[in-house]
This record gives sequence, C-alpha cells and structure tokens, in this order.
Amino acid sequence: MTIELVNTGSELMLGRVLNTHQQWICRQLADMGWVVQRQVAVADTGKEICAAVREALERADLVIVTGGLGPTSDDLTRELIAEMLGRKLVMNDEIRTEIAKFFTSRNRPQPVRTEVQALVPKGAIVLPNSQGTAPGLAMEVPPGIYGDTKSWLIMLPGPPRELRPMWTEHVVPLLKGEFAPAENFVCRTLKTTGIGESRVEEIIVRHLDEQVKGGLEIGYCARTGEVDVRFVCRGPNASACVAAAEKITRRLLRDHVYGVDDEQLETVIVRLLTERKQTLALAESCTGGFIANRITNVPGASAVLLAGLVTYSNDAKEQFLGVSAGTLKRHGAVSEFVAREMVEGARRRTGADYAISVTGIAGPSGGTLEKPVGTVFIGLATRTTTCVAAKVNAFDRETFKYVTSQQALEVLRRAMLESKE
Amino acid sequence: MTIELVNTGSELMLGRVLNTHQQWICRQLADMGWVVQRQVAVADTGKEICAAVREALERADLVIVTGGLGPTSDDLTRELIAEMLGRKLVMNDEIRTEIAKFFTSRNRPQPVRTEVQALVPKGAIVLPNSQGTAPGLAMEVPPGIYGDTKSWLIMLPGPPRELRPMWTEHVVPLLKGEFAPAENFVCRTLKTTGIGESRVEEIIVRHLDEQVKGGLEIGYCARTGEVDVRFVCRGPNASACVAAAEKITRRLLRDHVYGVDDEQLETVIVRLLTERKQTLALAESCTGGFIANRITNVPGASAVLLAGLVTYSNDAKEQFLGVSAGTLKRHGAVSEFVAREMVEGARRRTGADYAISVTGIAGPSGGTLEKPVGTVFIGLATRTTTCVAAKVNAFDRETFKYVTSQQALEVLRRAMLESKE
Repeated sequence: MTIELVNTGSELMLGRVLNTHQQWICRQLADMGWVVQRQVAVADTGKEICAAVREALERADLVIVTGGLGPTSDDLTRELIAEMLGRKLVMNDEIRTEIAKFFTSRNRPQPVRTEVQALVPKGAIVLPNSQGTAPGLAMEVPPGIYGDTKSWLIMLPGPPRELRPMWTEHVVPLLKGEFAPAENFVCRTLKTTGIGESRVEEIIVRHLDEQVKGGLEIGYCARTGEVDVRFVCRGPNASACVAAAEKITRRLLRDHVYGVDDEQLETVIVRLLTERKQTLALAESCTGGFIANRITNVPGASAVLLAGLVTYSNDAKEQFLGVSAGTLKRHGAVSEFVAREMVEGARRRTGADYAISVTGIAGPSGGTLEKPVGTVFIGLATRTTTCVAAKVNAFDRETFKYVTSQQALEVLRRAMLESKE
Repeated sequence: MTIELVNTGSELMLGRVLNTHQQWICRQLADMGWVVQRQVAVADTGKEICAAVREALERADLVIVTGGLGPTSDDLTRELIAEMLGRKLVMNDEIRTEIAKFFTSRNRPQPVRTEVQALVPKGAIVLPNSQGTAPGLAMEVPPGIYGDTKSWLIMLPGPPRELRPMWTEHVVPLLKGEFAPAENFVCRTLKTTGIGESRVEEIIVRHLDEQVKGGLEIGYCARTGEVDVRFVCRGPNASACVAAAEKITRRLLRDHVYGVDDEQLETVIVRLLTERKQTLALAESCTGGFIANRITNVPGASAVLLAGLVTYSNDAKEQFLGVSAGTLKRHGAVSEFVAREMVEGARRRTGADYAISVTGIAGPSGGTLEKPVGTVFIGLATRTTTCVAAKVNAFDRETFKYVTSQQALEVLRRAMLESKE
C-alpha cells in the first residue's frame, strides 16, 4: 500500500507555521503498520495544489491532503479538487445546519462565508468535524483519471485540534474498512542519553548481525542531548526479532537507555516516583519553569510534584527558598553555593524526597568573563545528601533551557537508579 | 528563482520526529525575499532520496537537502548524490583533522566510522560545522544533467543545532553571492486573539479592495485561540501597500490585534512591563509552570518576572501563597476563592505590580460532575483590584495548558491596556 501526504498552506512555505501534521499523521499510520512514502508541502495556490495532488494520485493508493477547507478566500482545496476530478459541488443541508448550530451555541454571529464549508463534491463521504465548522471529505478516485489504479483521496482541515479527533473518529474506521490490514510490522525506539551517535552504533551493531540477517532495520537519530536507536522489522518473526535486538542493546548500553518509543525523561521520572511513592520539589532560576512544565505534562504528576519554585529574583530566592543574603552577595546568584542552598531549601520546606535546583545564565546577555552565558549549576538533594554539578551550555536561550532541563532530569534519574541498588 | 527543499529521514516518515527544518529554512529564505515552492520529505532509502532530489533538480534553481550526512550506516545522502551526479568522493584531510579534534577536545574516543564525514564529492564546496562533525556541502549542477538550467544543490546536516549556525555562517553568504537579490518583497503578519477566522475576514476584507488591486495578497491562519492575518506584497510599492493594509486592519480590529510577525503574547507582555518598569508574579497550579516558561523564554524577562510559584499541592498553596486551609477545605483547590487567595498571596508576598493565578483540572482524570476536566479559574491582581474568570477548556492536557496560558496572558494584557487609558 502506497501512501502520500500533501500539506497545503502558504503559511507553511513562508515559514510562519510549523507543520505538525506530518509527524502526527505519519505516526498514526505507522502504528497501524503503514508507512508514508512521501510528504509534500505546497502553497495555497491552485497551480501548486493541483500539481501536488495529481502527482500523488498517480503514484499512491491513498492520498491525504490537509488544509484549505476553511471559510476564508484563501481556502481553495475543496473547489480545486472537485474541479480536477470533474465533480459538482453540492450544498449539504445537514452540514449547513451543523455550521449554523456551531455559531448559535456559542452566541456568535454566523459570517456568511462559513456556508461554503457545507459544499460537498458529488459522491464524497462527509467526515464530521466535532471541533469546528469545516467537515473533512473522502472520495474514491477511479482508475484511469490519475494513474492506472483506484486511489482514495482524503481531505482534512488544517487546525490540528480539528484534524486529530476527525482522524480517530472517522478516518481510522474508513481506512480499516477499505484497506487490508498491514502485514506484521514492529517499530521500537530505544531512547539513550549521555553517549554519541557513532559510539552507539560502534557498540551495538556487530552484535546484531543475526537480527539484521532476519530483516531488522536499524536507524539512529541524534537529538539535542540524546540518541534514538530505532528497530523496524516486518513479517511473522518481527516481534521476536525486535525483542532480541532490544535485549542485546540494553545489555550493551546499560543505563544509557532511559526509555522507549515516546517516553521522555519526565515520563520516566514521574513513573519511578509514582512506583516508589516518592515526591519531588523544584527550584528553578534560569530554566524559568521549564522543568516544572515538563514534569506537569505527564498525567499523574500531581501525585509526585509538591511544588516548583521559579525564583527568578534574588528576593524570591531568599523568601521562598531561604537562600541567605550573604551567600547571594558573596558568590552571586549563579554559583555552586546558591544552587546548594536553593535545593536544600526546596527539599526542606516542602518535605519532598528529592529536590532539583538550577541557577545559571540563559543569555543572550548577563554573561561575564568568569561566568560566560551558558554557565549553570544543577543541584540535587535527597533525604541524606546534596550535590551540585557545574555545566556550560552555550546555546541560544530556548536550547539552553532544554539542555539544562535534560541534564537536571538525568541527574535525578541516575540518583533514583542508584538509590534502588 | 525556484527553490525546493528535500528533507530526508526515515524517522520523519515513521512520525518519530517533528520536521522543524521546513519552517526554519522557509522562514530564513522568506526573510531574504525568496519563497520555497515545494518541500518534500522521504525516507532514508536510496530510491526515495534519489527520486526526490532528481525531480527537485529538474524543476528548481536551488535545491536544499537536509539529513543523511552523519556517520552511521543509515546516512546515505553524501554517497547517493555523488553517485547520481557522477562525482568521485575524495577524502578531505582538513575535515578529517577537524573531526579528530572534535573528539580529543571533548576527551571522547573517536569512532572509526566518523571519518566518512570527511569524504567530499569532487568539486563541492565544504560548509564547516561549528557544532558537530558532519560538514555541509554545496555544489553546482550544470545544465543538461537534470533539467535544462544550472541548479545549486546544498546539503545540510539533520540536527537543527548544527544546521542553523551553518546556514547563517556559510549558506547565506553563498546564496547572496550566487543569486540576484529578490525583488522588493514584504510579508507582515498581524496576530489577533478573541475573534474567529471568518469574522476577521468579514470585517476587514472589503476595506482592503484598493490594496488588493495594488497586488496585496491576504492570508488567514486559524491557530488555537488565535487568528493570524498575513499580508504579502511584491514590487516597488510593497512596503506602502502593506503599511496601508496594516493601518486599516488595526483600526477595524482594534485591541484584538496583540502583535506582529513572530510576537507572542508573552513577548508583548514582557515588552509592556519593561517599558512601564513594572513587575509580575505568577501562581500556577494546573498549568504547572507553563506560563512561567513562556514568560522566561523572552530575553529580558528577568527584569520583570519576580517569581513563579508552581503550587501543585494544597500544602504548597498554603505555605508559599498563604491560601487558607479553610478555603481549600470549603471550596476545593479548583475554585474561584482559591484562585483569588493564590493571586493575592503571590502579589503581596513578592510586591509585584501584577499577579496571575491559575487553578483547574488539566485531566485526563480528576474531573467531577460539578467541575469537569477542563474547568479552570484565572485570577488577576493589580495593586488596587482582584478579579477571577472561570473557563472550561475541555482539551487534551497539553492543549489545556496552552489555551489556559493564552487566556491568562490575555487577561493580563487587557488589564495593562486599560490601566494605561
């Protein structure tokens, strides 16, 4: 089965918007055992949209188009595709009523142009939109129009908040009904930290010869502060093959493997804390709440996170964490000593089992010769010990926050692993 | 000038990674006046990469390829393109030395395979990598090989942390030297909130007839809780035309316009606070530090944000904000009364000019009949007044945090606008 994805939107081509549909739709399909062959993004112009959709229909069994179904004058997909395929647009009264209801239930006047969203190419299946006014559309394109075989064409609205529930509620059942289930397909990603990409391959690859002969594909992806190792296999032995590869890799990389698939360090930490019925407190200066935000993105975080104190000013460090004015004056807010008093204050005042503190210079300004931009101290306190690590993360402001949060969470994870042993 | 972008990586097609290159590179080019016609993503297989690059070279004057230059066995771009274009790969001693230095300076052993990154197709320009080991490559493809005209082919490494400095340091000067400066091109986005997409068009479009006749293109992009209005124009009158459209739109949409281009609510708020020499404190429960994180993403935030208190537990609400145990018991942590005590406590204890508080149920669990998942109370305190707004943001956990933070920041922005008048 060949699948192509076409994302339309001038805002994409002008770099005004991040295309999150690619990852999301590709991931949904991969989880069903189908891999997208090609993804294309083009501007909202008739010429570009038609060319991209036509070429995709010529090659693929399934073409998914996102965007351009809205009510404004730059939303062209519906009309263009109807024209390309020679289908008349028909007003659908049910959708028209739904759209009117959408506005009355929100006490908002209904702009006239919103009615164009109730136009449906003749013979198309309507995919209701529970979150907005533009329905999705699905239609079979018979062989001989574009390419020699039949294709399915599915059009989805641009806003992710509308597209995602529509996918789950309407597209998945349609695909399951129209296409044979994919052959056994297993994809498993091991997430590692603290080790480089080529070193990972050097360590594991020669021990996986047998699995590679059995059809295992190995992929490596270097991310900021992490390397993903991805195993993909198809066929009746796929599960066993991937499981064997995972076992070998875990044995070789040991604690460098912190999770699998979508797990992130914060997921692992909330899971470990929950299992052990332990609690955490955070004292952040330069990361400004980013660590708290990562932890609280994990459902169930409220059972383990007692408090996160974003003490950006010196006064706040004194008042909320009990850092002494003398220490701040003698060593400066960005110092090992302040990191230590912050983390001990956070732990003591909340009674948490673990606390992390972070104080540093995120930049772009504020650096000195002795403490350049990127300087950061990471403190960890348990019920028995405190330690502080010094790093220099010389990145832009947001990368600095990300890398520092990653290091702080890894310090905590390692401490939790050791305390178990 | 025709530009195409090819992103390679099986992790993209499996939905394991978000493709941030598209937005970033498109944006850099748009800022130089050039618009990317087409972006394509394909897996790391020889067949797919060759087909995508070949088709792009046939159509475009400039083809930018990302990914596949690393040291692992799934990094194929360098070899494939050399072969496609009939260029021999030559070991470049200078790069080889740089790679060796990269490892010795970090006290890490050098894996053997990293040397493949010093192979350069004959005649290619090397783009040094200041952040990693894989250099970029640029080469002219003479007419007659793929397409009738000469093309430039630029290959860049996959990790954004390596690609971005390389772009600024080496690709921009190359492009400026090889391509004529783009004709006068102006792109301006007005960011609005609190009003729907078709309502925005309905209000403004008929007042912009004159500008549209003068070549103005108007685009609308609905995002969660916001609508972008984008003006694009080319030619000698572009600036004047876009400026006139902006003036008309601001007059019609008034305070709904909160910023321009890349401005976000947090940027606007930090700017307003900085201009007025005022300060802010945050008391977050269900948003878990997300608001503090947004504010501290803005350079200069340290001058205006005094503290952010992520009081996830009831104890933390009492201890750090002075919320009374009685109020928590009588009304529950998710209540108007607790939001009020939180915001007043945060303002009083820090002495800030403004404080925001948020308490709610992010879900997926924790909802009740009376207070379903998504229920949230947003408090605002100034030196003279306190008010609390109630909302129901029934979304997934991360969207809930985003929408709630957006509402809270907008409450603050409106209060600041009013206090000025």
